[in-house]
Amino acid sequence: MQHILETQQFDRKALQDLFDVATSLEGKRDESLRGKILASLFYEPSTRTRFSFESAMYRFGGHVLSMENASESSSASKGETIEDTIRIVGNYADVIVLRHPEAGAAERAASVSKVSIINAGDGTGQHPTQAFLDLYTIQREIGRTDNFIIAFVGNLRYYRSARSLAYLLGKYDNVTMLFVSAPELSMGEDIKEYLREHKVKFEETPDLEGAMKRADVVYQTRVAKEWIPSDDEYQKLKDRYVIKRGMADLMKSGAILIHPLPRAGEIEVAVDDSPHAVYFRQAGYGVLIRMALLKLLLTNHK
Amino acid sequence: MQHILETQQFDRKALQDLFDVATSLEGKRDESLRGKILASLFYEPSTRTRFSFESAMYRFGGHVLSMENASESSSASKGETIEDTIRIVGNYADVIVLRHPEAGAAERAASVSKVSIINAGDGTGQHPTQAFLDLYTIQREIGRTDNFIIAFVGNLRYYRSARSLAYLLGKYDNVTMLFVSAPELSMGEDIKEYLREHKVKFEETPDLEGAMKRADVVYQTRVAKEWIPSDDEYQKLKDRYVIKRGMADLMKSGAILIHPLPRAGEIEVAVDDSPHAVYFRQAGYGVLIRMALLKLLLTNHK
Amino acid sequence: MQHILETQQFDRKALQDLFDVATSLEGKRDESLRGKILASLFYEPSTRTRFSFESAMYRFGGHVLSMENASESSSASKGETIEDTIRIVGNYADVIVLRHPEAGAAERAASVSKVSIINAGDGTGQHPTQAFLDLYTIQREIGRTDNFIIAFVGNLRYYRSARSLAYLLGKYDNVTMLFVSAPELSMGEDIKEYLREHKVKFEETPDLEGAMKRADVVYQTRVAKEWIPSDDEYQKLKDRYVIKRGMADLMKSGAILIHPLPRAGEIEVAVDDSPHAVYFRQAGYGVLIRMALLKLLLTNHK
Repeated sequence: MQHILETQQFDRKALQDLFDVATSLEGKRDESLRGKILASLFYEPSTRTRFSFESAMYRFGGHVLSMENASESSSASKGETIEDTIRIVGNYADVIVLRHPEAGAAERAASVSKVSIINAGDGTGQHPTQAFLDLYTIQREIGRTDNFIIAFVGNLRYYRSARSLAYLLGKYDNVTMLFVSAPELSMGEDIKEYLREHKVKFEETPDLEGAMKRADVVYQTRVAKEWIPSDDEYQKLKDRYVIKRGMADLMKSGAILIHPLPRAGEIEVAVDDSPHAVYFRQAGYGVLIRMALLKLLLTNHK
Repeated sequence: MQHILETQQFDRKALQDLFDVATSLEGKRDESLRGKILASLFYEPSTRTRFSFESAMYRFGGHVLSMENASESSSASKGETIEDTIRIVGNYADVIVLRHPEAGAAERAASVSKVSIINAGDGTGQHPTQAFLDLYTIQREIGRTDNFIIAFVGNLRYYRSARSLAYLLGKYDNVTMLFVSAPELSMGEDIKEYLREHKVKFEETPDLEGAMKRADVVYQTRVAKEWIPSDDEYQKLKDRYVIKRGMADLMKSGAILIHPLPRAGEIEVAVDDSPHAVYFRQAGYGVLIRMALLKLLLTNHK
Repeated sequence: MQHILETQQFDRKALQDLFDVATSLEGKRDESLRGKILASLFYEPSTRTRFSFESAMYRFGGHVLSMENASESSSASKGETIEDTIRIVGNYADVIVLRHPEAGAAERAASVSKVSIINAGDGTGQHPTQAFLDLYTIQREIGRTDNFIIAFVGNLRYYRSARSLAYLLGKYDNVTMLFVSAPELSMGEDIKEYLREHKVKFEETPDLEGAMKRADVVYQTRVAKEWIPSDDEYQKLKDRYVIKRGMADLMKSGAILIHPLPRAGEIEVAVDDSPHAVYFRQAGYGVLIRMALLKLLLTNHK
C-alpha cells in the first residue's frame, strides 16, 4: 500500500490487521522512524488531526515539517496547483498528510506523488483515518464490530465522518443503524442506497431518547456551521438534538457515546463523566491508528 | 508539582532550587527528554515565549507540536472550549504550554488536564515563567535577591510581568521599589495593598532620572498598545518615559537595566551597548529557566 | 564563513566546493547536527524555501523552530525591529533562516547576530541559496557551468532569482545570455551594465521559439503578481511568454528547462513529462545545497 486515500482500500481483514497493530502500539515510543520526515499540509485548520499525526510520527522518533495554514502561507497563494505543490514537497518529506477543502484533492495529489499521501480530509470527499479510528473505538470499547446497534445523531447529511463510518460498517454483519436527525440533515440517499444494496438494516427516526435506549453505540455529530448552506438554517438546527445527561443515563450498560469532536454544545458538559462518554479517549485511539498507518506506509513500501 | 500556573506556587526555597538547576543547565544539551512531546498552544502571538520553551525542549532532545496562531487555526474557530481542547491535546503531548487571552484560562486548563500545563501568559492573569526569569536575571546579574532597590518604569498598570515581579519580590528582604509612571499608568492598588501588608517599602515618583541614579535594578516596560484603553491615551503616554543613553550612564556601577521585551522605542538603541543593558542576555536566561521547569515537570511526576 | 547573505561571498572555487559537498550528500541522512537548532523566521510565505531548509536540517538530525508567518504572529506586530528580534532569537537557535520583505534585512540581521544568518530572500535584495541551487542544477544536468547558452524568459525585471543567476554567471567563461521578455519586463540596466563590464555576451530578443532552439538552458520565470506595479499590467503581461509542449520539443538534445517555481501557468502542464523539464528535480537539488550550507556554517565556525 502506497497511499491512504479512502476507506474502500481496506477490507475487513486489512482493518483487523490495522487494529491489531494499533493496539500493540499503546504506550510505545521507539526510534523506528528515526530520520524519516512527515510533512503536514493543512489547507484548512484542524488541531486534532494535525497534532495526532505529528504526535504519532514523534512517537517513532521521526521529524515533522508543518504547515498549519497552507492556504495563506503556501505557494497556493501564488496560484500553484496542488499537483505542483505535492511534486515539490515530495523532495522534502517521506510522507505527506494532506487536508484540503476540495473533494478529490487527495486522489489528485497521489496521482503525481513519489512519496506516500495520507488523506486527512478532502472537503465533502473522505477522511478515512477518522473513519478507521471511529471504528477502532467501537471495537476497543464494546469489543466487537458485528452484531450491534448504532445510532447516528444530528448532522447526518453534511458530517463527513458519520457518512464514512456508515459506509464502512456496511462490511460488517448484523449492524443496525438508527438515523436520528431533522429532515434537513437526514442521511444522504447515496449512503442509504448503498446500505440497501448491502442488506444493512437502517431506520430513520426523530426519537432521540428511544434511539439512545436501544443503541450500543451513539454517534453524535456537530451541526457544523461551515457546512450548512445558510446561517438561518444553522441557527434553526444547531440545538435540535443536544444530548443531555439525563439522556445519557438512559443508555444500556456497556453502551458508548462517541463523537469525533470538536463539539459546539451538542453534548452537554454534564455528560463528560458519564461512564458511557468515551469521546475524549477516542482522540487517544486516533494516535494509535495513525501510528499503525505510518508504520504500514513507511516501513513497507521500498 | 504537576502544573505551573502562578508565581504563588513557588516559595523562596523552591525558587532558589529552580535557579540552581537553571544555572547548572547553562550550555547543556542532552537527551534526557528524548521521546517526550511538548505542545505549544498559543492563542496569541508571542515569538519569544514560544521559541524559548521549544528551544528548551529541544536542548533535552524532546519533540514539539506547535500551534502559533491557535485562535485562527485550531478548533477554537469551531466553537470548542479550552477545556475540550486541553483534554484532546493531552492525548498527543506530555506537557502543554498555553498562551491565552483570558485570565484564568490556565487554571481552567489544568482542572481538566491529565498532562502538565504551563501557563505562558493568560491575559490580565499571570505569566509566571516570565516573572521567574526576571527574578533569575536579577540574581545572576547583581548576585542577590535581597537588599536592593528596583525602579519599575512606564506602564505599571497594564504590564503583567511588572506586576508579577513586584508581587514575587514581596517574598524577599529589604527590597525597595520605586514606581515611576504617569498617573494613568500607575501601579494598581491591589499590588500596593499587598506590598503594604508584607511591609515592602515602595515610593511613587515621576522622577525617572532620580530613580535611575538610586536603583540597583531598573525594570523598563512597554506602553503596550494592545492593553491601553484608547489610542489617544496610547499616543499621549507612549513616549513619556523613554530611557536614553544619557540616563543609563547615570546608573550606579553594577546596576542593571532589564526589560522583558519586545520594546517599541522605550529604550533607545544607543543604550544597547551600555554595560548596564542586560535585556538581551535576559532572554537567554529565559531558556535556562524553561529548561529547569521542563525538567521539574517531566522527570518528577510519574 | 559566518553568514550567507549574498552571492558575492562565493567565488568560483567556493561554489565548486559547495557543489561537491552537495553532491556527496545525495540520499544521506545522519546525526551530524544532532542537538543543533535552526530557526525559520519567515515574514513572507514561502513553502518551498522554508520546508527545504527544515528538511535539510532534519536530514542531519537537527531541530527546527518555525515561524511560518512572522509578520502576524511575531513581535513585529508589537513594533519590534528586526535587529531586536534577531538578538533575541539568537538565544534560542544556532542558525536563523530569514525571509523578509525589505531589501537589506539580512545584512541588518547579521550585523547584530551572534549566530549564523542565512538570507532566504530579502525583498528586492538577494536570495543567494536560490541562485546557488539554480546554478547547481545547471551543473548537474548539463555537466558544466562554462561554455553554454542560457535563455532567461518572461519576468526578467522583477524576478529576483533570474537577476541573481545572471549576476552569478558573470563569473563563468563563455556564457551567452538570451533575454526574452516584453519591454516592460526587460532585464534591468544594472545587470546589463555588470555583464558588459565582465564581457559577458547577451542579446535581447522577443523571439521565444528562436531562443529555445538555441539555448542549452531555458530559465522560465513567473510574472509574479505581487511584484508587478499594477493589476492591468499584470493581466496584459502574464500570458505573453507561456512555454507550450511544442516549444519544449524544439529544444536541443540534452538542453534543459528550469524554473524556481511556483509557476502560475507560464509552463503548460503538458511540458512536465518532456525530457527537457527538470524543474521538479531542481527542488530536490535545493535540499542538497541547503544541507551543504548548513554543514558549512554549523560545523566550521566555532
